[in-house]
Amino acid sequence: MTALQFCVTQRSPRDHARLGILKTPHGQVTTPVFMPVGTQGTVKGMTPRQLAEAGASMLLANTYHLYLRPGPEVIEEAGGLHRFAAWPGPLLTDSGGFQVFSLANLRKVTEHGVRFRSHIDGSEHFLGPEESVLIQNRLGADIIMAFDFFPAYPCQRGEAARSVELTTAWARRCRAAHGREDQALFGIVQGAVWEDLRKESARGLVELDFPGYAIGGLSVGEPKPAMYEMVATTTPHLPWDRPRYLMGVGSPEDVVEAVRHGVDMFDCVLPTRNARHGTILTFHGSLQVRKAGLARDPGPLEEGCDCYTCASFSRSYLRHLFKTGELLGMTLATIHNLRFMFRLMERVQLAIAGDGLENLAAQLREAYGLRRAGGKGFPG
Amino acid sequence: MTALQFCVTQRSPRDHARLGILKTPHGQVTTPVFMPVGTQGTVKGMTPRQLAEAGASMLLANTYHLYLRPGPEVIEEAGGLHRFAAWPGPLLTDSGGFQVFSLANLRKVTEHGVRFRSHIDGSEHFLGPEESVLIQNRLGADIIMAFDFFPAYPCQRGEAARSVELTTAWARRCRAAHGREDQALFGIVQGAVWEDLRKESARGLVELDFPGYAIGGLSVGEPKPAMYEMVATTTPHLPWDRPRYLMGVGSPEDVVEAVRHGVDMFDCVLPTRNARHGTILTFHGSLQVRKAGLARDPGPLEEGCDCYTCASFSRSYLRHLFKTGELLGMTLATIHNLRFMFRLMERVQLAIAGDGLENLAAQLREAYGLRRAGGKGFPG
Repeated sequence: MTALQFCVTQRSPRDHARLGILKTPHGQVTTPVFMPVGTQGTVKGMTPRQLAEAGASMLLANTYHLYLRPGPEVIEEAGGLHRFAAWPGPLLTDSGGFQVFSLANLRKVTEHGVRFRSHIDGSEHFLGPEESVLIQNRLGADIIMAFDFFPAYPCQRGEAARSVELTTAWARRCRAAHGREDQALFGIVQGAVWEDLRKESARGLVELDFPGYAIGGLSVGEPKPAMYEMVATTTPHLPWDRPRYLMGVGSPEDVVEAVRHGVDMFDCVLPTRNARHGTILTFHGSLQVRKAGLARDPGPLEEGCDCYTCASFSRSYLRHLFKTGELLGMTLATIHNLRFMFRLMERVQLAIAGDGLENLAAQLREAYGLRRAGGKGFPG
Repeated sequence: MTALQFCVTQRSPRDHARLGILKTPHGQVTTPVFMPVGTQGTVKGMTPRQLAEAGASMLLANTYHLYLRPGPEVIEEAGGLHRFAAWPGPLLTDSGGFQVFSLANLRKVTEHGVRFRSHIDGSEHFLGPEESVLIQNRLGADIIMAFDFFPAYPCQRGEAARSVELTTAWARRCRAAHGREDQALFGIVQGAVWEDLRKESARGLVELDFPGYAIGGLSVGEPKPAMYEMVATTTPHLPWDRPRYLMGVGSPEDVVEAVRHGVDMFDCVLPTRNARHGTILTFHGSLQVRKAGLARDPGPLEEGCDCYTCASFSRSYLRHLFKTGELLGMTLATIHNLRFMFRLMERVQLAIAGDGLENLAAQLREAYGLRRAGGKGFPG
């Protein structure tokens, strides 16, 4: 029994979307939920207060980065990541697997785990399922993730099959190594773009009876329809009374499509990274704030937005901050983009409880979908 | 008659320090006051809300930078700098003179003004007394500064004498060009390190009857005793019922010494610039937050500080943010350093009303003075 409780409060009659309540030792959140990413124990440029005011309810932090700096012993000694980062609400840490595979040099994968070199100083390290869980135990997030593996996209079916096998075996070892009852350990479904592998992966994990399940290895370069299809294929094989988390996905149209297929949790660096580059999210598409046309624009970044940035500052001022390289520009744009994501989730929740997600999905495909490869959305 | 009102509410019996109230069209402040510098219309990394919460009552912005980007016409069209930067309180703009002399390329000074090249794109520009006042009129700060000139330190007496002459002549032209009754124009005393030139400069300006007077051309490389002496020499020649502003000075021990000689207003980039480099101000001296010894230090940056940073985060976390280059580190350190300056001004005000500034001055000389050239402080 874990300290995590999840309760589906409403299921849409139109699709697989659901509303839920996720209760953790550090507070409860309404799902579907979007988690901002605080890679190194901080959502870049934001104070915890600004995050809470924008509407953040739950954050993600990266085990790989925190393992290297400042080290799990420093965070444990500080009383855990909640206290270290002064974030009193729910927290999730990933397993470090994704970062080790995509960031670190000279990685060598065996059945035991992964040997790699730090991207900071080239020092050699080893992470396996037991190590990852131990580090996450020391960090102390409310939800921790099993150590998984997936090949880069595109891959051969054989590689994908091996990653499923390894991920399931590692999930079992993570479960055995996990020692804290106040943390919930989620399993991660792999299988690249093969339906039967996704199904096999889900079944293997469900046998291990995790309190929640993630869908991993997507949004890594595959066409959008393939991603939507894999989500649609996987969720029916996951227990309906456990939270489902689609890892690394967070573009507005993708979130809505995935919710329609029964996903409850999301994280993505894009809203915050885009903000730091001056790309502003709105319900009418994205806006580059450095555009010359905004030089004298007295309006807010997005008409109708209730964030601090839109309530206080003009497009003209934001453009000035970005053109002059001022730090405040990044902070104000991040406040807006995160508030946009939380407003989006509010609309998603209302739509599930009301008329359904079709209109919102169509609006976001129109605003965002056409500009991307394969971005017409899942043919619903 | 200007919209500015200044009232000395208490004079110290021990020295020349005074308490006052400075009332502007955008609110009133208690003097002595420290103004954070918002060079480009933003105090780097701080929202106006964070500034107000830290205790900022009045800000300074730089005319040179705002003239080049985004341009005075953009700010005027936005309703002035208060609205553009969302700072509802009192604002002061400098004249652009100091920046033109110290930042811009290929400057050529004549009696008309200064021809220079932008540090951004090399484009050619001209600033004279009329141009500076017109730009400041368009920016709309509550207090604007006369366009002045001073030679680099060290200089010959002849150069210093010429700068006094030019500065007085330009001050007269600024006064004639100034067209907004809701803005108060201050004159600036020059004269480098010559007592008689400072006196001559002060007298020339006082004849022009400005609502306030600044002391310029100090803290530019001269020994500290020389700076203190020039302040002590100048203030007796300024009317006691007008505010006195020591430009560009803001190290803790210098502020206290200058207050003892009758100065009411200060600005300085050091508290904010130091913060961005991880140098933390405390009443026991400064602290480099990257120091290895802080890696596991659970205490606040400064024991007893009431700022958001000290109330919420440990030295260990701050060190982590700086070691990993996270933006939040700069913001949190800036919040602390500014709060330190405002706490310092609160102590200064209380000391003027109470037992005098001697103890505070001694404490700050001990904490800050010994580490600098000529930093033993003014022999009081």
